[in-house]
Amino acid sequence: MTSLINKLDQITIVGPGLLGASCGLGLRAAGYKGKIAGVSRQLSTAKRAQQLGCIDTAATDLGPPVRDSGLVVVAIPLGAYEQVFEQLAQHDHDHLIITDVGSTKQQVCALAKRLLPAPARFVGSHPMAGSEQHGPDAAHADLFEGKPCIITLQPDCQKIAVQTVENLWTLLKMRLVHMPADEHDRHVARISHLPHAMAVLLLQLATEQGGLELASTGFKDMTRLASGDPQIWRDIFATNREAMIEALDAFAQELSGFRDCLSQNKDQAMLELLDKGKQVRDTWNHR
Amino acid sequence: MTSLINKLDQITIVGPGLLGASCGLGLRAAGYKGKIAGVSRQLSTAKRAQQLGCIDTAATDLGPPVRDSGLVVVAIPLGAYEQVFEQLAQHDHDHLIITDVGSTKQQVCALAKRLLPAPARFVGSHPMAGSEQHGPDAAHADLFEGKPCIITLQPDCQKIAVQTVENLWTLLKMRLVHMPADEHDRHVARISHLPHAMAVLLLQLATEQGGLELASTGFKDMTRLASGDPQIWRDIFATNREAMIEALDAFAQELSGFRDCLSQNKDQAMLELLDKGKQVRDTWNHR
Repeated sequence: MTSLINKLDQITIVGPGLLGASCGLGLRAAGYKGKIAGVSRQLSTAKRAQQLGCIDTAATDLGPPVRDSGLVVVAIPLGAYEQVFEQLAQHDHDHLIITDVGSTKQQVCALAKRLLPAPARFVGSHPMAGSEQHGPDAAHADLFEGKPCIITLQPDCQKIAVQTVENLWTLLKMRLVHMPADEHDRHVARISHLPHAMAVLLLQLATEQGGLELASTGFKDMTRLASGDPQIWRDIFATNREAMIEALDAFAQELSGFRDCLSQNKDQAMLELLDKGKQVRDTWNHR
Repeated sequence: MTSLINKLDQITIVGPGLLGASCGLGLRAAGYKGKIAGVSRQLSTAKRAQQLGCIDTAATDLGPPVRDSGLVVVAIPLGAYEQVFEQLAQHDHDHLIITDVGSTKQQVCALAKRLLPAPARFVGSHPMAGSEQHGPDAAHADLFEGKPCIITLQPDCQKIAVQTVENLWTLLKMRLVHMPADEHDRHVARISHLPHAMAVLLLQLATEQGGLELASTGFKDMTRLASGDPQIWRDIFATNREAMIEALDAFAQELSGFRDCLSQNKDQAMLELLDKGKQVRDTWNHR
């Protein structure tokens, strides 16, 4: 292999949780021969990830591993970025490329610009993979396989940095999508953050008004996301406030249109709506 | 076995689709030795179900099988009930017990009262099982296992009819829940019909405003229901209009509360909401 990733002697994963640890496992499965260093706020998390073979070394101080790494993958909750970027700034060096897996990108890119000494070596990415589980025990090598990864290029990104980060996600078998950070944030608000909110609110409604004892597989799927880590999701919503409000308002409009269909007995329009939904879902799911 | 079901020489399944055919397979798996007759509007559906071992005989005319049956399970789209109940009325006999699997119950019970010669021998039920697939090929013997089945008793139901229908779903390993039809309809509006609408509307929003190419596993789960049969769901919404509008309005309120949380930067309240959602989901899912 002549990939850029394989030329790196060491990669540091900051936050070897579900995504970070899966990244380590995926790199190993893809044949990466270099060292994978893990850094975590809680040493126990990194130690566990090391034990599971996701990373080679475990530390709480990112200084030493970062100094010896050509790439850092930041895989931590959005609320912890500021502190980690400040630490990265302290240990930055000319050949350091930084990427992340954060679910919102405008604030992350702004933070990189403000805090990192060379924002041109930062390439934001958002691998659309995960589950309601968390921690290294939930990690697996093919978590990313076949899923989209959005690369949010800034105009001044260094070419080698972009190519290295693209190489990383391609090795993990992701499908790359390029998009400006603001467009990314609006899109994921609709197809990821709004669905998460809906899962939580469906549970709240059932708790308040009853019916949970009748719920079955459909409800199970529709609420799975609500089992995700509350702190991670508080951070996601807080860093995507504007786009999320836009998505909520747009969805309220959809709900209102559906309500009109029902209350005005427009059963033919209802059938067309359901037909269209099925068609879009089936096409998307089988592509 | 001394169950009431096992005393019956023949059971007729009207509509051997996903639910009806699974009922046949489940009865057989539970050791039912009598004959299982299948009746379907399209002979090909019944023939296919017969081929798959879900039913013993296939017919389009429900007269002959119903005359020889002690129990009829109506498993057809809600829009076809009127016609089938009229036919059942023609072939009714003193020992005939009728149940159904319809997703809404007030209109079904009213229809039974209006069209069947002995509504006391009709016991409405709603097994909360299914999938986005349909037809006998999707059927399996354990489709109902461990899931709730709501029995909507009318005050004048014959005791033996109730016991027989309860025995049916218990043999299929369902968990029985008793509830008046109107309460059932309100509850399922919230935990089944509203989620279905949300899946369809999420797809509509993504189609109109973009983002589908970024969607991943979360979106996949949140939209699975939209792959369900549009005609079946048009009928469900049309026969549960009032409760569905109530559920939509209640959900719009929840959305609005969530929006306030976001727009007013109430990050602590947001965290509490997410915590509560996770707790309810995890408890419900692991019970």
